[in-house]
Amino acid sequence: MKFSAERAILLKALAHIQSVAEKRNTIPILANVLIQAAGGKLSLKATDMEIEVVEEIPATIKRDGATTVPASVLYEIVRKLPDSVEVELDQADSEGPLLLRADRYSTRLNVLSVDDFPSMGTGDLPCHFKVGSGVLRSLIDRTRFAISTEETRYYLNGIFFHAAETESGKLLRAVATDGHRLARVETELPAGAESMPGVIIPRKTVAELRKLIDEAPEEIEVALSETRVQFTAGPVMLTSKLIDGTFPEYDRVIPLNNTRILRVGKKDFSDAVARVAAISQERSRPVKLALEPGLLTLSASSPEQGMATEELDKSRISYDAESLEIGFQARYLNDITDQVEKDVEFAFSDSAAPTIVRDVDSPSALYVLMPMRV
Amino acid sequence: MKFSAERAILLKALAHIQSVAEKRNTIPILANVLIQAAGGKLSLKATDMEIEVVEEIPATIKRDGATTVPASVLYEIVRKLPDSVEVELDQADSEGPLLLRADRYSTRLNVLSVDDFPSMGTGDLPCHFKVGSGVLRSLIDRTRFAISTEETRYYLNGIFFHAAETESGKLLRAVATDGHRLARVETELPAGAESMPGVIIPRKTVAELRKLIDEAPEEIEVALSETRVQFTAGPVMLTSKLIDGTFPEYDRVIPLNNTRILRVGKKDFSDAVARVAAISQERSRPVKLALEPGLLTLSASSPEQGMATEELDKSRISYDAESLEIGFQARYLNDITDQVEKDVEFAFSDSAAPTIVRDVDSPSALYVLMPMRV
Repeated sequence: MKFSAERAILLKALAHIQSVAEKRNTIPILANVLIQAAGGKLSLKATDMEIEVVEEIPATIKRDGATTVPASVLYEIVRKLPDSVEVELDQADSEGPLLLRADRYSTRLNVLSVDDFPSMGTGDLPCHFKVGSGVLRSLIDRTRFAISTEETRYYLNGIFFHAAETESGKLLRAVATDGHRLARVETELPAGAESMPGVIIPRKTVAELRKLIDEAPEEIEVALSETRVQFTAGPVMLTSKLIDGTFPEYDRVIPLNNTRILRVGKKDFSDAVARVAAISQERSRPVKLALEPGLLTLSASSPEQGMATEELDKSRISYDAESLEIGFQARYLNDITDQVEKDVEFAFSDSAAPTIVRDVDSPSALYVLMPMRV
Repeated sequence: MKFSAERAILLKALAHIQSVAEKRNTIPILANVLIQAAGGKLSLKATDMEIEVVEEIPATIKRDGATTVPASVLYEIVRKLPDSVEVELDQADSEGPLLLRADRYSTRLNVLSVDDFPSMGTGDLPCHFKVGSGVLRSLIDRTRFAISTEETRYYLNGIFFHAAETESGKLLRAVATDGHRLARVETELPAGAESMPGVIIPRKTVAELRKLIDEAPEEIEVALSETRVQFTAGPVMLTSKLIDGTFPEYDRVIPLNNTRILRVGKKDFSDAVARVAAISQERSRPVKLALEPGLLTLSASSPEQGMATEELDKSRISYDAESLEIGFQARYLNDITDQVEKDVEFAFSDSAAPTIVRDVDSPSALYVLMPMRV
């Protein structure tokens, strides 16, 4: 194998590749990138056996071939080369080392056999559709914060994507929950997704996909089976196993009759939460919201440090239902308001019942938050 | 006590204060800031019993008094207040809580008794001088990287400042070493420092002082005894204990007859070191410099990954002494070249002997580096 490529192009692809390659050293070949030059195309591939990423890059191929070298070492070397340099990779015979040359610099990298590089296996992916990359970004950003990190509840360790029957017809929904809060975001169902199975996309796949979206073309192709999902974003193809579990029937926890409505500017609210929460370093201490018509009083206290209070009056909020006191974890409140553009709406039932939170300007997102006792 | 101050001014002072206050919770009062309003002046003070910082800030004092509250909590609260707000602090009686009010926000902070706030004790500081803050910054930046972190060699856990007799008369010298490398930087002896004792300023004090320098006026006042040092930078006064130990006779390890001279551009050299070192993730692996007239070949190898080489020829370097091979830790080389402006000069003896490194344009700094076997 022998080819040359521009350093900037090689670096960008290796950034995606090395992020998927396995960092722990249990199976050495999983730390490697598979480099293949064949039929005028150069491709780079890495896998951790859960996710696989393949990227094609433009290169001048002088001799076909394939080899594997440590992804992070190759990435670090290319990263440190001067910006505009042409990088040549040359493996004289299929067992020998890979030589990298750039200007006056050269590296001889030990290789592992291509035959040992594992394939994750994709199988048939019968369901196909396209989704706008902006739409996919928004589905991810507004739900991923609620993904559970509890390993025992593995079926909550990802985002649940499915085609949902709603009053407005069939929609594509992304849902995540950790039992304390739930995020549900929906969008028009793309053509071809009508028959899609409900799938739980794992947290790491969500993270890798999210990185790709920022450089993706306008549309991303999605292909699905019951066990695999594949995203094609221009020259990059990300394939992932799905979480083999049943996502809970989340609609049951979404209350329907919360009638006490608070509206408040997102910034006024989140700043006030941050200030009252600063009294306590304990992350799980609640912030109390005390509501009466035309007045929201936020407060928090700590046995050691003291207590803090902030009032938002009717120039800042609208509330005209009955009085209510209810507590939430500050960071759960902020995770949601971070996703809100301008004004946030809370719909309360009582101080022990799940509360609904919405972005006033974006009805496609709905959040449910469990209160804490205060 | 009752006073009000601008949020921005209070915040800046609290940033210095909370950084000195003790973070571990062993002695609660050491986590507190002592706030004193008296005689038209407002001062904030914190100590960890090794360092003490006192800062005066402009404030509108309505009632004299003093109290102590947790420094990091007060800092976090003030940090989260809106930018332009006026902050009022009010303690109705000397045992009661401290109330903080800003706009619609209020906090009631628990206090600890002023009587329990410890004083580090300064004693007489007979030696006084002034030093330019730019000069002090340069002395610190070019030596602190070489401070030892080995706790058993406590007398190396700081920078040694002293008045040295040299061929060019008496100079103020800063020296640090960890046994692998040594940094010695000198400057004109300030008036008043002729009789200064040699003092070892601890690492944490160096770090706090360095933070103050960026906001300091042109000159910093220094006052010294055998056991204490005090820096006054405008409204901030930093007092510190000194390390009670004897700094080694460092001049003995500085070789005098290293005659093989290599000159190379700092960027060419450090980029090449970074690239060849990228072959190995082990931090302590050496980079080998192979020298012959008109040619420097840098190389590094790793049993797992392979090896890397870069050549710098006579268009980049000047060297016309005998051939030589010598190895150094990559990060030790980079710590030194990071301090060099443009061109770096190495003076070698042989591959086992200490090497001298200098900034060609700044003879006031001298570095000694021990080689590693390659």
